[in-house]
Amino acid sequence: MFSKIIKPTLLLDKTKCLANIKKMTEKPHNQGVALRPHFKTHQSAQIGEWFRAEGVRQITVSSNDMASFFAQAGWEDILIAFPLNIRQLPLVNELANSVNLSVFVVSVQTAELLAAQATSALSVYIEIDAGYRRTGVNADDLKTVKAIIAAIEKNKLLTFKGFYAPAGNTYFTGSIEGVRQIHVATRAALEKLKQQFSAQYPHIELVTGDTPSCSIVENFEGLSAISPGNFVFYDLMQQTFGACTFEQIAVAMACPVVAVYPERNEVVIYGGAVHFSKEFLTDKQGQRYFGKMVRLSEQGWGEPLEDCFLKNISQEHGILQLTRSEIRKIKVGDLVGILPVHSCLTANLMKSYLTLEGEYIEVMPSIFH
Amino acid sequence: MFSKIIKPTLLLDKTKCLANIKKMTEKPHNQGVALRPHFKTHQSAQIGEWFRAEGVRQITVSSNDMASFFAQAGWEDILIAFPLNIRQLPLVNELANSVNLSVFVVSVQTAELLAAQATSALSVYIEIDAGYRRTGVNADDLKTVKAIIAAIEKNKLLTFKGFYAPAGNTYFTGSIEGVRQIHVATRAALEKLKQQFSAQYPHIELVTGDTPSCSIVENFEGLSAISPGNFVFYDLMQQTFGACTFEQIAVAMACPVVAVYPERNEVVIYGGAVHFSKEFLTDKQGQRYFGKMVRLSEQGWGEPLEDCFLKNISQEHGILQLTRSEIRKIKVGDLVGILPVHSCLTANLMKSYLTLEGEYIEVMPSIFH
Repeated sequence: MFSKIIKPTLLLDKTKCLANIKKMTEKPHNQGVALRPHFKTHQSAQIGEWFRAEGVRQITVSSNDMASFFAQAGWEDILIAFPLNIRQLPLVNELANSVNLSVFVVSVQTAELLAAQATSALSVYIEIDAGYRRTGVNADDLKTVKAIIAAIEKNKLLTFKGFYAPAGNTYFTGSIEGVRQIHVATRAALEKLKQQFSAQYPHIELVTGDTPSCSIVENFEGLSAISPGNFVFYDLMQQTFGACTFEQIAVAMACPVVAVYPERNEVVIYGGAVHFSKEFLTDKQGQRYFGKMVRLSEQGWGEPLEDCFLKNISQEHGILQLTRSEIRKIKVGDLVGILPVHSCLTANLMKSYLTLEGEYIEVMPSIFH
Repeated sequence: MFSKIIKPTLLLDKTKCLANIKKMTEKPHNQGVALRPHFKTHQSAQIGEWFRAEGVRQITVSSNDMASFFAQAGWEDILIAFPLNIRQLPLVNELANSVNLSVFVVSVQTAELLAAQATSALSVYIEIDAGYRRTGVNADDLKTVKAIIAAIEKNKLLTFKGFYAPAGNTYFTGSIEGVRQIHVATRAALEKLKQQFSAQYPHIELVTGDTPSCSIVENFEGLSAISPGNFVFYDLMQQTFGACTFEQIAVAMACPVVAVYPERNEVVIYGGAVHFSKEFLTDKQGQRYFGKMVRLSEQGWGEPLEDCFLKNISQEHGILQLTRSEIRKIKVGDLVGILPVHSCLTANLMKSYLTLEGEYIEVMPSIFH
């Protein structure tokens, strides 16, 4: 299969990917909690079908364009997990005519504009900031929460569904214990809110769902749904948190070698910032890396080779730092495998996958304007 | 015009862009040096025409796909400024049937494979490493240069054209003087090589051309061509080098405001890593930034507002740090302007431009496989 790869190509190990999907579907299911997976990572209608085969019916996306794309692909229950962009309200109204659409509201002002302009039935989640400090209403700001609910209730087409707390702050802890603590605190904040409003709203939903927490934590009791996304592929960043093992990483870049420099133990590959993204990690010695090298075979790839990493990238070039023994095995024209630091951004740039069975899978096309 | 912008949009100030093109075309022209602009920055057939209108006939690209795209757009003299990827040799042969194609060779091994497999007329430049340490033959490694030339000459379809030294190391100096010193050293290395080979090859060409050098240096005497790319738009990175002023930056992102947090002087915009790229700069206080805010008007934008910058980005969210006085002026639904750190990567992600006259300009589509 590798003979047909002539340029940077994102390989997908379907077996690993299906196992990741199955594991993440079963865990909440056994506790009566829904999986509402985030599809921003794979952005692919075909991979979406692998979730559907596991019984998934609700999904999460991060933009209106992505919601439209997956609606066309047959998904009928879609949450746009991004603060409602009022400049796109006409699109939201239109899309809500054909699917069960849920949106995020993070301020009274947006709630009022939505109430004034919604012309289709919409479910509304209030995004809660339980410590992430990106976006959302502070978990203890009951006054704003009440004002948002009051604004929503002015329009009968709008239904207040509950609270959603993204916990992207788990990405900054760097440890399993740190992730677990943030998850516990996030859930406690959500539970407290539920108690405040459950008399009036007995069916209030609580949702959270970053990949580190959902991978590490076993018990989701009290939540209505979890919405992780990255777990479909995982990546080096998740591995550093302890959210996955190297073996669970389901994507790897295959890149042609274009130059070999034994005197500096470096290889230049065709594969740069327009393929990997400029996301990096830093090792214990303070060395930045943009990927780690794996050896490719028709069966896929193994664990990263020690001290072999993508040291620097420019637009199309990648500089791979290798050990003295490894560089001896490499020549111009070879393909090397690289595990990406952040699979969401790499997949977004690559726009297609090649499975180990030789099948191309495409992602959502760019929607120009 | 701004009323039609509903999501992150890359604005193009055509007047500034045309002035950048004109200035960079005239400077070498007056010295008998060709401009062979790098089209990897804009990746647009339409913007290519603005160069053609200034008399440009030779171009530089960074991939075979890009060479094919611009060949289809009517360009007949194309240099692929990336170490020849032998896995794509059949494409190179095919493309060289229809255009005057030049390639880079960086090793004897690649030269021999090319000589064995070239079936169309090709011009060959030897890429020289004059200190950048990315790719190329060390400038003082005459043995390798001679062996490459000897290999090339085995196939009569191949013509040895000269030496090309990219000088991306100018990006690491951070000062006008540093850029100038690297440019001088790069040219000296090229000149020295020319002296070695000019008896046998009297028409040997010398080419270099990173944007910082080509913007800062006035005299290109001795060079055959320069091939800068980024100057077509410039960006914050170039401004930090002294390669451009803020006024010359010809692109800015327009992003909708989706949340306002006066208590922390932050605004959340629709605009993240899939729009800007994760390239960042670091200010004197060690603060990373992914862009700087400008105020938008129908006439374009002005200089960045002091202490107003894109502090952090995730996949679709951007967190904008503002001053207390600036945040008072902003509300949900507004559009803010952001100058990008690295316009090449932002343009590559955005895939289209909107001119201030309201015209959409598209870039090269993704070629899946």
